[in-house]
Amino acid sequence: MDYSQLWLNWKRREGLPAYTGAICDETHSEGGRAALRELRLGLEAMNGTPPLPARDGEAPCLRVEETEDPGDGFTLLREGEGLCLRAGGRGLIYGAFSLLRHLATGDPFPRLVSSPAYPIRMLDHWDNADGSIERGYSGRSFFFRDGAPFCSERTRDYARLLASCGLNGCCVNNVNVKGNALHLLSGRYDEELRKIAASLEEYGVSLWLSVSFSSPMELGGLDTADPLDEAVRAWWRAACRRLFQSIPNLAGFLVKADSEGRPGPHSYGRTHAEGANMLADALAPFGGKLLWRCFVYNCTQDWRDTKTDRARAQCDTFAPLDGQFLENVFLQAKNGPVDFQIREPVSPLLGRLPHTNSLLEFQLAQEYTGQQRHVCYLMPMFREVLDLHLRHRPQADTVRDTIRAVTAVSNTGDDFNWTGHDLAAANLFGFGILSWNPAADPAEIAREWSVLTFGEDPAVTETVCRILLRSREVYEKYTVPLGIGWMCVPGIHYGPSPEGYEYDRWGTYHRATCRAIGVERGPEGTGFTEQYAPPLAALYGEIENCPEELLLFFHRLPYDHRMKDGRTLIQRIYDDHFEGFEEAEEMAEAWDRLQGKVPEDAFRRVQERFREQLRSAREWRDIINSWFFRLTMIPDEKGRTLYL
Amino acid sequence: MDYSQLWLNWKRREGLPAYTGAICDETHSEGGRAALRELRLGLEAMNGTPPLPARDGEAPCLRVEETEDPGDGFTLLREGEGLCLRAGGRGLIYGAFSLLRHLATGDPFPRLVSSPAYPIRMLDHWDNADGSIERGYSGRSFFFRDGAPFCSERTRDYARLLASCGLNGCCVNNVNVKGNALHLLSGRYDEELRKIAASLEEYGVSLWLSVSFSSPMELGGLDTADPLDEAVRAWWRAACRRLFQSIPNLAGFLVKADSEGRPGPHSYGRTHAEGANMLADALAPFGGKLLWRCFVYNCTQDWRDTKTDRARAQCDTFAPLDGQFLENVFLQAKNGPVDFQIREPVSPLLGRLPHTNSLLEFQLAQEYTGQQRHVCYLMPMFREVLDLHLRHRPQADTVRDTIRAVTAVSNTGDDFNWTGHDLAAANLFGFGILSWNPAADPAEIAREWSVLTFGEDPAVTETVCRILLRSREVYEKYTVPLGIGWMCVPGIHYGPSPEGYEYDRWGTYHRATCRAIGVERGPEGTGFTEQYAPPLAALYGEIENCPEELLLFFHRLPYDHRMKDGRTLIQRIYDDHFEGFEEAEEMAEAWDRLQGKVPEDAFRRVQERFREQLRSAREWRDIINSWFFRLTMIPDEKGRTLYL
Repeated sequence: MDYSQLWLNWKRREGLPAYTGAICDETHSEGGRAALRELRLGLEAMNGTPPLPARDGEAPCLRVEETEDPGDGFTLLREGEGLCLRAGGRGLIYGAFSLLRHLATGDPFPRLVSSPAYPIRMLDHWDNADGSIERGYSGRSFFFRDGAPFCSERTRDYARLLASCGLNGCCVNNVNVKGNALHLLSGRYDEELRKIAASLEEYGVSLWLSVSFSSPMELGGLDTADPLDEAVRAWWRAACRRLFQSIPNLAGFLVKADSEGRPGPHSYGRTHAEGANMLADALAPFGGKLLWRCFVYNCTQDWRDTKTDRARAQCDTFAPLDGQFLENVFLQAKNGPVDFQIREPVSPLLGRLPHTNSLLEFQLAQEYTGQQRHVCYLMPMFREVLDLHLRHRPQADTVRDTIRAVTAVSNTGDDFNWTGHDLAAANLFGFGILSWNPAADPAEIAREWSVLTFGEDPAVTETVCRILLRSREVYEKYTVPLGIGWMCVPGIHYGPSPEGYEYDRWGTYHRATCRAIGVERGPEGTGFTEQYAPPLAALYGEIENCPEELLLFFHRLPYDHRMKDGRTLIQRIYDDHFEGFEEAEEMAEAWDRLQGKVPEDAFRRVQERFREQLRSAREWRDIINSWFFRLTMIPDEKGRTLYL
Repeated sequence: MDYSQLWLNWKRREGLPAYTGAICDETHSEGGRAALRELRLGLEAMNGTPPLPARDGEAPCLRVEETEDPGDGFTLLREGEGLCLRAGGRGLIYGAFSLLRHLATGDPFPRLVSSPAYPIRMLDHWDNADGSIERGYSGRSFFFRDGAPFCSERTRDYARLLASCGLNGCCVNNVNVKGNALHLLSGRYDEELRKIAASLEEYGVSLWLSVSFSSPMELGGLDTADPLDEAVRAWWRAACRRLFQSIPNLAGFLVKADSEGRPGPHSYGRTHAEGANMLADALAPFGGKLLWRCFVYNCTQDWRDTKTDRARAQCDTFAPLDGQFLENVFLQAKNGPVDFQIREPVSPLLGRLPHTNSLLEFQLAQEYTGQQRHVCYLMPMFREVLDLHLRHRPQADTVRDTIRAVTAVSNTGDDFNWTGHDLAAANLFGFGILSWNPAADPAEIAREWSVLTFGEDPAVTETVCRILLRSREVYEKYTVPLGIGWMCVPGIHYGPSPEGYEYDRWGTYHRATCRAIGVERGPEGTGFTEQYAPPLAALYGEIENCPEELLLFFHRLPYDHRMKDGRTLIQRIYDDHFEGFEEAEEMAEAWDRLQGKVPEDAFRRVQERFREQLRSAREWRDIINSWFFRLTMIPDEKGRTLYL
């Protein structure tokens, strides 16, 4: 096999309880069969011998009882010296993996009633038909090659990985639908799509497709894609009928419309609601759902224009439409208002759609967070987002209460280790866990992932967890300060370029002068902070209240602004960069000490990535610091080297 | 025909003298035949009737007398009411075109004795085997397509164009030799190369090839390309023997060695002299010449390193080797010490090779000068270079005295108009004229080109010449100030990016702070100015003497530095940018007034380019000015708009 099993590489364990040696199979569905298969595989690997078949009540055994529950939840309960896994067919899959994970991490008698927080827990692949992956850092696509989709053993193993951490959906093609990918809708690739859908479905994972809003023109030969045009509506109805007949277990469509040059309803003077509802209407008879991205802004902004604020765009566009969307529409909003930067506030749009299904989109692909050459464990960031209390209501108004579904841009590709950086697999695993239980503890997730991946050696677990848990803060410290974002090389988004986006069309400016930096987004500025509920608006809008890590996202400040600890803003920036690099060195050294304690191939792969991380972190440190120094001529108080 | 004839599109002229109606043919060579063909073609076009054959002394006629002179020179002398063109075979070609140009521009009885200043007057094509052109802005290659060279009618017409303005050589492939281009040496493409060589030779133009220094490894399977290795030397001797047997009129090789990642003698601890002489030795038996580029510098510089000065690199490398090169070696030095910026001093290397053949390289391809979307007539710049007195000796030490040959990177491709921008053809023509006569007047060249191209309407000639003659200064004003260079988008080299190269590896830094800008290259700085003869070293090395247009090339200065006219440096920069844009607008408006006076298709093509020039010039103006304003917070004294 030319790929690893990641955390599903179950290891031999001594002293598991007796019930793990025998299984009483009371299942009858495909899900039940998958669960049984995984239990047998896992228990055999851990015990060294395959579990025996057992009859109920005979002796301590694992009883797998299938109910008629259509959901994903499951129950694990003790039965004397035995254990019972009880669930519907889909739930058995999640229950089986959960049990195995508990056993493998030292919890021999897990008892729990577990069900997922959201019915849709998925990954978005930005895979192109030609096999390339937009923002992919782990090789080529394993869903597409040479212009067409394909199904392989890896498809099914991917579904296992997703199910094993709680995920249940996968959109296989890039939201920027181009080339042959248009034809995923036309029937040209039905046979392969059916195979992919079946492989995923075996593990309860649904297939989703990204479609182009202008498909009626591109595929249907119509001269419009106007969502209110009857011919267009009929075309989509027919297209859905055909597609669902061929692939009945298709979950629905994902659409990027009127965004970064993609076609959409605005071309016809229609609203996003009119556009989305038209598609949702065509999907409804087949139980299909529509995921409609909210990543809409002016991507041809004149840099001279200081009135337009990209951060405002999504709320300005979508909040007024709340309540207008059909019930099978989900509005998909990125976690921040701009674009997956290392530090952004939570998108205010998430609080402004009380009468609409909203779907929170994270990015596992480390586009702006080191591209899987830097280690950057994102679960702490994701928890911050999920935990934020939006304050529109006094209770139950955290992001995780508000949303109805979660997705993340996948970080996988056909590399042996799936994610390029071995440690980036913790993000894939972690996102699955959070998608099931958004209150899960990032430290606990890291621990579980490390034990499942590298085994139980406490030295390994402790080191891996320490690296993971500090990695985001370290990356942030040596890269872009205090939420300002975008000081990266244009297009590539890797490496520093302090003014790379400054005079461009993307609406991402810091407008630094020798005296001050940042875009003022408070009430005296662009008014972005007013998009939040009043308590958050007050928090973010006033410099003295604003969380310091977001200071330069929200405010324009002089370099001698005093931080809460008394340092000047510029000194804080210098300090962060020097410290961030040193901390990256410490992480790399900590990894070096694991040689011999983790498999040699993984050790070397990660070591090599750390080498690149340090090279890059040094560039970040020196370029950002020197740029600020040249701009201000304010020296570092500690006299460290800045370059003129 | 899918391409224009440029300035060879002879127009009907009334009242030419009688001798132009009859030709007395006393030629016997291929050159003579080409000359006759061109004279008949041109005179027929101008007179409306073909010239008649005449016998000597019969009536006023054009007598074409072929001598045994092997050179390119020719004589035009009056014989009563007739005219005699007298030259050797090659000279007749240049004489014929010269006569036609005189007739077409209103000089019916030209009398002159003319011979070229340099024996090698050539163009370098950066055409790749796949048909792309490195830094090409006029379409695809007309020498290569689909991985192989090809010969067409256009090859011969290109040779006519080159000969018509005085050129006699053409290196057809990119100095960065890659892919199939390696096999130009191996025999794989001999048949097509022979055809190309023959087409060029018909007009006295020699074929040159760029070769890779490591060909013995890439083609010969040797494990070294060490120039002192006997197997390597034997390989090159055999390769030359084979090649010259197949293409006897080949002129020689052009080599880019130890430059920007290209292989070279340094890999083997050998000097450039050892490398070049090895190749020259292999070429010598066949009369072949070796052109060896001096564009050698550290292209992986650490931006933190302030000691290394790219401007120094060529002199430091090559000046100590003066006198060590064989006599068929020509060292090819770019006109400036860095790389074809809009304003650079003359390369000091040109004065440091008294015992070596030196070949001056210009760039017609407008890589840094607007990429043939901006009009930028380069002859005034070229004349500045050629006219500079290097002061190593009191007399006859201008650049044009010093060099032994000239070349230029071509600006042509397979666009209909050859050069993308119709007005860029003036650069091609002008370089030819200067290569023959480096004292030719850029204004006179522009006038001649305009009349030949657009006809005699004085309003057209005056407007075209005014546009051409101010175009370089205008481009300079709205782009990069006072010789500082490199404020362009990295890689692409089009459009502004004030810090685009600042933290990169190319050795091209301005190191601007809020207080000062520039690299100090005087004796207190990198010492680059000391590479010139003492009078120039003093001129450039002292701020008060330094020509202002080069001030920021040579010196690091505070923004309040007083220019000679009393303005501050920063105010001069602001003024230049505002004025430059306005002057670009004036040029575009002047062109607009030519509608109906020049052919409509050319009018529209140029108008469209002017539109892009203005769009781009506005970006340059506003980005450069705003960048300086943000950096310094010094306002414009005239209160014009700067963007925060």
